[in-house]
Amino acid sequence: MRLRAIVAYDGTAYQGWQSQRGRAPTLQEEIERALSVALREPIRIRAAGRTDTGVHALGQVIAFDVSGDPYPADAAADASGASSLDALLRSVNALLPPDVAVRSLAGARAEFDPRRDAVRRAYRYRIWNAPVRSPFEGRIAWHVREPLDVRAMQSAAAAVVGEHDFASFQGADHVARASIRHVFASGVERAGDVVTYRVEANAFARHMVRNLVGELVEIGRGRRGPESIAALLAARDRRLAAAPAPPHGLVLEWVRYPEGG
Amino acid sequence: MRLRAIVAYDGTAYQGWQSQRGRAPTLQEEIERALSVALREPIRIRAAGRTDTGVHALGQVIAFDVSGDPYPADAAADASGASSLDALLRSVNALLPPDVAVRSLAGARAEFDPRRDAVRRAYRYRIWNAPVRSPFEGRIAWHVREPLDVRAMQSAAAAVVGEHDFASFQGADHVARASIRHVFASGVERAGDVVTYRVEANAFARHMVRNLVGELVEIGRGRRGPESIAALLAARDRRLAAAPAPPHGLVLEWVRYPEGG
Repeated sequence: MRLRAIVAYDGTAYQGWQSQRGRAPTLQEEIERALSVALREPIRIRAAGRTDTGVHALGQVIAFDVSGDPYPADAAADASGASSLDALLRSVNALLPPDVAVRSLAGARAEFDPRRDAVRRAYRYRIWNAPVRSPFEGRIAWHVREPLDVRAMQSAAAAVVGEHDFASFQGADHVARASIRHVFASGVERAGDVVTYRVEANAFARHMVRNLVGELVEIGRGRRGPESIAALLAARDRRLAAAPAPPHGLVLEWVRYPEGG
Repeated sequence: MRLRAIVAYDGTAYQGWQSQRGRAPTLQEEIERALSVALREPIRIRAAGRTDTGVHALGQVIAFDVSGDPYPADAAADASGASSLDALLRSVNALLPPDVAVRSLAGARAEFDPRRDAVRRAYRYRIWNAPVRSPFEGRIAWHVREPLDVRAMQSAAAAVVGEHDFASFQGADHVARASIRHVFASGVERAGDVVTYRVEANAFARHMVRNLVGELVEIGRGRRGPESIAALLAARDRRLAAAPAPPHGLVLEWVRYPEGG
């Protein structure tokens, strides 16, 4: 049977979700190892989004198959009042390092594919905007010293809502791919020294959020006008946009599926 | 001349503010080293609160003397538009590790003593209250799995406001010391999975916040009633209160001085 899980991780210590280079462990390897030990069979997982090195997640969605039915989704409560899925959840979390956690586990349709079936994804990008760094934000926020004009950033961010060709904001190594995406929400807000960009879309082109944030910060610094985003969307040329924001401010917040998915 | 500074740190990697044991670096050593290099003379600092191993700070206050007048507090702006104190701030932060930051620097009275002169201190204690740990909260919050009754905790927390003898909440190794303190504010609130205790007092007995939080969590779990706090204050016996909460949820938020201090 197929199970699905929601996973959170601090990506600082990992070579991204999946990597061919193999210098540091990947999140996929770490989670597959813990699930394989807990379930006593080799487990292969599929994820909604293959996050890059240093990128974090609060709500990554994964799916995997277990042979037989060791942890039935509709299991009756055991003597301790916990279901078998609860027991599996505890066991997997005890086997995972402190910077990775499985937040929930549930049964899934046999055909469920967390990547292909997703209809909406949300990312958040965090900026620590103060002259002096924060000892608590170094791993999870980009430190930008110059005060950012959040009003100008917000006006620019709103311009990407709707269906657009994001070729100008796509990773330079992927320019050949289709880059039309539908953005449902895109906004910037400040809370004290933290400036947060939130974006929801049907899907994201590679490096799209980091490239958008790179441009938004140039706008927030006053080096480009808020209208530059619309011009870049029209130009469809990666070479015109700002450098990408660093990966460590980025968090995959959640992934949504159709009813019953 | 004497300078004062506000310092923030993630205490995870340090043997507290000051230690005789010398297994790991202390925050005092780390900051004195950076200041001595930046100022090219041996610098000794005094702090408002000697935080324990693993405890963090957002607004620790320190003071130190510099010989001569290399960084006058009233220095005119230099060619780049920055004052000498701004230059010292940047230089010290460049010499400190990422988990320590000097947030601000200013001139002080020659007799300013950050510990003796303080009139009010605020601490915050953070609890991650969810069945599964958070990969982002492990170093800065105590993970309590059972759902906490924040209403009961708040009612108990309010009972410590005022002048009381905190002997029941004082570190067991310090029972001989005077333990009367004036608490100005004490409250518990929940925001999602995070339960935060905030307390302000003229001063704190050793381990007082961690001991109060240990008791509050027992109350939040329903193992003791909210009235237990008042009974413990009256009993003045450390052996009756709950075990202290772990250090890593505790943050020294700010320290206040009289006008002109």
